[in-house]
Amino acid sequence: MATVKLLSDAEIEKIPVAKAVFDDIRASRKSDFVNNFWRGLANDPPALKRTWEQLKAVMGGKTSIDPLTKEMIYIAVSAANACTYCLHSHTAAARAKGMTEEQYAELVAIIGLAGHTNHLVTTMQIPVDREFMVES
Amino acid sequence: MATVKLLSDAEIEKIPVAKAVFDDIRASRKSDFVNNFWRGLANDPPALKRTWEQLKAVMGGKTSIDPLTKEMIYIAVSAANACTYCLHSHTAAARAKGMTEEQYAELVAIIGLAGHTNHLVTTMQIPVDREFMVES
Amino acid sequence: MATVKLLSDAEIEKIPVAKAVFDDIRASRKSDFVNNFWRGLANDPPALKRTWEQLKAVMGGKTSIDPLTKEMIYIAVSAANACTYCLHSHTAAARAKGMTEEQYAELVAIIGLAGHTNHLVTTMQIPVDREFMVES
Amino acid sequence: MATVKLLSDAEIEKIPVAKAVFDDIRASRKSDFVNNFWRGLANDPPALKRTWEQLKAVMGGKTSIDPLTKEMIYIAVSAANACTYCLHSHTAAARAKGMTEEQYAELVAIIGLAGHTNHLVTTMQIPVDREFMVES
Amino acid sequence: MATVKLLSDAEIEKIPVAKAVFDDIRASRKSDFVNNFWRGLANDPPALKRTWEQLKAVMGGKTSIDPLTKEMIYIAVSAANACTYCLHSHTAAARAKGMTEEQYAELVAIIGLAGHTNHLVTTMQIPVDREFMVES
Amino acid sequence: MATVKLLSDAEIEKIPVAKAVFDDIRASRKSDFVNNFWRGLANDPPALKRTWEQLKAVMGGKTSIDPLTKEMIYIAVSAANACTYCLHSHTAAARAKGMTEEQYAELVAIIGLAGHTNHLVTTMQIPVDREFMVES
Repeated sequence: MATVKLLSDAEIEKIPVAKAVFDDIRASRKSDFVNNFWRGLANDPPALKRTWEQLKAVMGGKTSIDPLTKEMIYIAVSAANACTYCLHSHTAAARAKGMTEEQYAELVAIIGLAGHTNHLVTTMQIPVDREFMVES
Repeated sequence: MATVKLLSDAEIEKIPVAKAVFDDIRASRKSDFVNNFWRGLANDPPALKRTWEQLKAVMGGKTSIDPLTKEMIYIAVSAANACTYCLHSHTAAARAKGMTEEQYAELVAIIGLAGHTNHLVTTMQIPVDREFMVES
Repeated sequence: MATVKLLSDAEIEKIPVAKAVFDDIRASRKSDFVNNFWRGLANDPPALKRTWEQLKAVMGGKTSIDPLTKEMIYIAVSAANACTYCLHSHTAAARAKGMTEEQYAELVAIIGLAGHTNHLVTTMQIPVDREFMVES
Repeated sequence: MATVKLLSDAEIEKIPVAKAVFDDIRASRKSDFVNNFWRGLANDPPALKRTWEQLKAVMGGKTSIDPLTKEMIYIAVSAANACTYCLHSHTAAARAKGMTEEQYAELVAIIGLAGHTNHLVTTMQIPVDREFMVES
Repeated sequence: MATVKLLSDAEIEKIPVAKAVFDDIRASRKSDFVNNFWRGLANDPPALKRTWEQLKAVMGGKTSIDPLTKEMIYIAVSAANACTYCLHSHTAAARAKGMTEEQYAELVAIIGLAGHTNHLVTTMQIPVDREFMVES
Repeated sequence: MATVKLLSDAEIEKIPVAKAVFDDIRASRKSDFVNNFWRGLANDPPALKRTWEQLKAVMGGKTSIDPLTKEMIYIAVSAANACTYCLHSHTAAARAKGMTEEQYAELVAIIGLAGHTNHLVTTMQIPVDREFMVES
């Protein structure tokens, strides 16, 4: 039910830019499985390449936020944006990176609470306290 | 510019339920400062009490997600919900809990990237891969 | 800080279609005050006319939902859409139609709770129970 | 297709906190049916208890907004948040509380109109009229 | 799985207002096919009529934005609102109006990028530059 | 009121990666003015570089969607995401690229209408017609 064709491995083989990205996804993830998101995006090979490189830059590498926390932040944004696919793919990714069911339950609770107070604050249009402002 | 009056300490004094919550906020945070959100919510004392108790249960205590990560998740939800007040208050809270500027820069980048792929996926209506589904 | 000019009464006078709508707004509301929304929309007189007529059809007249409830529903949608202007204008309208502070406090609490459970449900991607489905 | 297991009655039996909530849901609603939302949330028994108690406090009891109006407000928030499950469950609940098809048609029309003017106002960034502001 | 019955042609025949709109949809589109949106909305015949007339006024006629561009703008709004049905129906409509796969790929990329920078800007709460403001 | 410092030209001078991006922004736009978004993002020089390069790739170059249409699509996404800054900056950009007031009025009307039907469709949970589905 996508609005684009999801390209098969045979179709990817014929598009060098897409083939190179798929090879890199497989090598980076040490798995032959490439999920539907990339198969849809492959209809636009330069976008596929740009998006994958950006994802590697932001989500990969040695950084000050650990890989599991990154996935939990991704889930939080995807929940507020009601992105079904993203919730399934990043919840699976978080579990693959070691998220326990206890951590997931807490994540769900924090997202729910944030949704709650976001709605309270927005409805009442609470003005930002001077104490929270950054000098600029 | 709120749609409700923000109650002053003098007004809070006269509402026992609200006074008890404000006392607990001050004791929990070891600070005399109580931010506008609670001053607006205090127009409905039972809601004030319910919300504060829920916040303590979810954000406080010894849990499997550390306090700083919790604030970063809160920021992620608030960004996707475009909640100006929440972004200011929880960014200040995250910094108070030790978030470095490097961590904040990464958080911003992850939220941006998630917003990006959320929009790509939703536009193309990518179907969820069987591999991501949980048995239920 | 609008992206369009907000037309003054003197400017409205020169646009017959807009003038007729403004006259009708004033007559319907029994007040000389015309708020900024209509002054911005007046840059596109046919859109001004279409929107006002639609508003009268939906919000006015004798219907099965009373006028105050309609305003509360409007506030609920505007909160979830983070529409600052709409929240201020429809909260003022609801108060003008008799909303008590007790009712407003309850409205805020329901919106907050709905935001909470919306986020919980979406994060966990709960499937719709067969019992809730309508035959079609 | 949830990201969590939906707990069966047999599984709930083994979790005292969850069992007590399920018993209370059944008693409050005078029905044996417990919908999927609670079965998913039951993976986190304290969250299940907190959420149910909050729901009872906000949606139940003798209050200044009648039970059917509360459900309609819930639907309005859920529509703007694109929460499929919530729309189905609260539309069913509103009908169970007596919502007529005429009232539902009006509710849909108000939500549509609010979505319309929310988008117009936000696009044009209309500034809030001084007349709408509350002294604080 | 709609919350309303989708009316069949036989049912539409019995509702004169709805019948007239369906006839006009068929004549305007030079096709016998009437999609589910109108079949759901037909439960409220005046809303059906209002919505169709508004759609004709905004999307049809000789105007300064061409019909294909209008559909692409519609897709952009629907993506950000996570409206599955709207994405499918307007992507089909855009293709019927000549959108090439190259144009669609670019549209998807722009929507993704806008989602990205929207999230960056909102997270950091960047203040509007004086240079962007319109005199009003 | 940003959550980050907006870097001045003097501060940018001391960060080679940021300086190179600012030089390229000025050269590409043939203007000395660099707006606040880039000054906030410059706190994370690699993100600044990534985002600018992506923007150039998507919004610039010879492509199948003209530059003005691209800005209008950007405005549409930003409206649905309630991104105040983005609405001001891209409306200014669209005008700089020749958007007439007539075109802007039509754009506003389309965004409003899409918001309307998005809300109607989502509230009623209309199922996608088979006719709109793409083979995949």
